[in-house]
Amino acid sequence: MDTPLKELLSYVTIQHLKNEITGVHHQHNEGHCNIYDDITSTPLGGSPNVEYLTSLLDGDFKQDRDHLYRLFQNNEEFDEPFLTEPGYTNYKHRERTLIASKLIADQEIVTLEDMKNRPDKFLAWFETISYADLSVSLKFAVQYNLWGGTILFLGTEKHHSKYLSGIQDCTKLGAFGLTELGHGSNVNGLETTATIDQDRKEFIVNSPTWTSQKYWPGNIATHGQFCTVFARLILKGRDHGVHAFVVPIRTPPLSGHPYGLPMPGVEIRDIGLKSSFNGIDNGGLLFKQVRIPLDNMLDRFSRVTESGEYESTIAPNRHFGAMMSVFYIGRLCISVLCLAAAKTAVSIGLSYSHNRKQFGEPGKPEQPIIHHTTQQRRLLPNLARCFALDFAHKLVILTNTMDLKHSYSSGLKAVGAWDCFSATQLARECMGGQGFRLSARVPVLRNHLEVGLTGEGDNTILCQQTSTDKNKFKNY
Amino acid sequence: MDTPLKELLSYVTIQHLKNEITGVHHQHNEGHCNIYDDITSTPLGGSPNVEYLTSLLDGDFKQDRDHLYRLFQNNEEFDEPFLTEPGYTNYKHRERTLIASKLIADQEIVTLEDMKNRPDKFLAWFETISYADLSVSLKFAVQYNLWGGTILFLGTEKHHSKYLSGIQDCTKLGAFGLTELGHGSNVNGLETTATIDQDRKEFIVNSPTWTSQKYWPGNIATHGQFCTVFARLILKGRDHGVHAFVVPIRTPPLSGHPYGLPMPGVEIRDIGLKSSFNGIDNGGLLFKQVRIPLDNMLDRFSRVTESGEYESTIAPNRHFGAMMSVFYIGRLCISVLCLAAAKTAVSIGLSYSHNRKQFGEPGKPEQPIIHHTTQQRRLLPNLARCFALDFAHKLVILTNTMDLKHSYSSGLKAVGAWDCFSATQLARECMGGQGFRLSARVPVLRNHLEVGLTGEGDNTILCQQTSTDKNKFKNY
Repeated sequence: MDTPLKELLSYVTIQHLKNEITGVHHQHNEGHCNIYDDITSTPLGGSPNVEYLTSLLDGDFKQDRDHLYRLFQNNEEFDEPFLTEPGYTNYKHRERTLIASKLIADQEIVTLEDMKNRPDKFLAWFETISYADLSVSLKFAVQYNLWGGTILFLGTEKHHSKYLSGIQDCTKLGAFGLTELGHGSNVNGLETTATIDQDRKEFIVNSPTWTSQKYWPGNIATHGQFCTVFARLILKGRDHGVHAFVVPIRTPPLSGHPYGLPMPGVEIRDIGLKSSFNGIDNGGLLFKQVRIPLDNMLDRFSRVTESGEYESTIAPNRHFGAMMSVFYIGRLCISVLCLAAAKTAVSIGLSYSHNRKQFGEPGKPEQPIIHHTTQQRRLLPNLARCFALDFAHKLVILTNTMDLKHSYSSGLKAVGAWDCFSATQLARECMGGQGFRLSARVPVLRNHLEVGLTGEGDNTILCQQTSTDKNKFKNY
Repeated sequence: MDTPLKELLSYVTIQHLKNEITGVHHQHNEGHCNIYDDITSTPLGGSPNVEYLTSLLDGDFKQDRDHLYRLFQNNEEFDEPFLTEPGYTNYKHRERTLIASKLIADQEIVTLEDMKNRPDKFLAWFETISYADLSVSLKFAVQYNLWGGTILFLGTEKHHSKYLSGIQDCTKLGAFGLTELGHGSNVNGLETTATIDQDRKEFIVNSPTWTSQKYWPGNIATHGQFCTVFARLILKGRDHGVHAFVVPIRTPPLSGHPYGLPMPGVEIRDIGLKSSFNGIDNGGLLFKQVRIPLDNMLDRFSRVTESGEYESTIAPNRHFGAMMSVFYIGRLCISVLCLAAAKTAVSIGLSYSHNRKQFGEPGKPEQPIIHHTTQQRRLLPNLARCFALDFAHKLVILTNTMDLKHSYSSGLKAVGAWDCFSATQLARECMGGQGFRLSARVPVLRNHLEVGLTGEGDNTILCQQTSTDKNKFKNY
């Protein structure tokens, strides 16, 4: 285990946590709408050191987090009208999500390079955003981690200078075109091709079949101007495997079309209503012989020479894995998004359970339901689990090698997201009928956790992947 | 065990079911939108006798079921536009739900008396409706089981002749006013009072506090003209415990107000958006000294004499339990609603898994994902569980005594609904990203299953109740 985390954990003995956690509800009672007059707080016992516990979770980034909390509180763009307004459309939600994202980007708390150089800072920033509407944090997963990540990690200087600042300030919106309708988990089956036209010095990007349409990315259906398309590089009739290419999918903004119009040969589809994240414009993309300049190939690992020869610094059988492993930070972001949702849900469930009275000794007043063991056993272990998962994420960032980071983040995303889903669902059940209302947020958080079960790698498949990585763990 | 079910089960050996079930997908493939050209069916082996399996599930009511299926297929009122239309409001959904419910009532397949005399027929009818939009079946749970049930089971001839036909044809819509904002599971804490005014021969129904508002019933916020209000009967200053009273909450239809206007002294609230069942108009009700005739007391078990004396055929400590136990059919209805949702979800998950290809032997075509054990183990045990739960419901109906029926139906609702929730969630996860779209129905079915976890008695509490009933089981 890495030393800094070991040091951190040495402060946190089990007995210590037990004492602390039993009273952590103090943190969440303020501002709660209490239907009873006579409850102000109902501690179970213990004198928690809330500041200390908070500092464990905040890590080194309390200032960044507080800055964001103030932003959320002072801007109505962070309200969640889809919880209360009948007929609030996904179109409105998408616009609000973009405005909120731009507001956050304007704060310049992180840079895209922080994904590489300060992953701890980036992750703390991302987690904090995830306490607001989760569509906003997923918008950054799309814009920064995925679209930005392809430019930063797979591109070279010519791409960095052209795109990074526009990605950073959300003026150049883009998508991550990896999975296809027919090829989700099995990315080896990708069908999209990028064929070189040596005479015109262009690639021709093409979707040969219906199943080859790029499917699911956010920033497709409404907002995106660019897409990094993963396609088979075809050179002199030979398939060199999957490489990444920047393809403009919409024109720059036009009068009456603030996000431009689809580029010639690009067909854009809208995936429509989902069980959550309706602020994200997921879509499908089909390319009909779309031409792009040779420079649009993201050529950090591999390139095509002036004379049309293929060059790569990585063996073909390692090429795709190398491209993907740099995105471990994106997977960790989805993972902390889930954790933030679970923390929120468990906090709401605890707050409700301290304020809701039901049953009691015969002839005595009813008791807050947190006094019932059936509530405690569904909430408190998951409160502890939130702390454990939080520390686990901090551990993964401290890991030294890229291989381990990739492997840990994959396994943690899978196991953690399932835990978060179950914690959130139990909090929902602990809230009775009130947990059924959208305005309680908890059922909505539960639905958002779907992204942790399937997105950024299907959990079942990630577990298999992590377990086959077990040899890598032996030396640590 | 009762003989008919024993006979039924004797046909169903485990080996038999194994052989049958492995191919049951044949039943569901027709009409499925298949993105591949080369799959028509991909049996895992075995030659299922689909007709036989279907007959086990249909029971004696194939004709009723087929009639309803044709109705669903031929009327657009049974479409589910909230799955696909952005901004489809809960108000529109409520109107569509009512129209669909009236269409079903017009078929006159069941009568309210069937709840008592032909519970097997009633339950088969209710389950079949639950394959359509679940708001429609819940509308009947509200209108028939709850509002109708109070009149039928707790009322006497004068109430039957006045209300039953209008309840049956959905012209007299009503609600079930039991739980209060402050009193959900602990109904002993109910605060609403019905105080006799002996001079004017009236009851005065009153909500003394904010927490005493009747909270959650459907048919409140938009549609209901009546509510059966459970209130403490106060007679000459003495509290005789909770009894049931019919209270008109809206006027009859008026020009411009198709559902009338709130009656004087009745305050109606709208609970707003929920994670599902947005076709149901759940609401809150407050009564400010609302006067009703003495005849509006539902007096099957207890009554107030001409001279103002209280009479009851049941001991006070058994009174509330006796009133509630007659509603076991309502609980079974919620329970089969959950089962129908799980059957639908598992069927959709299986159909998808037979039609979706991913991975395969190197160099060979990709395989339908049902060939992967990770899919089989998440779907097939739950397919078997659907059959087991189906038979369990048929068993409970055949049980002889009311005590046992109440106890079994409570336990089955709790355990079954949790199973159905988990089966539906696993089907969702087995469908990858496609299971995230509302049009796939599965995530929506999952959300609807909340009603089985909390509604008609919180599952945790019902489990405790059923386990304390264990002495009743000893003699059977």
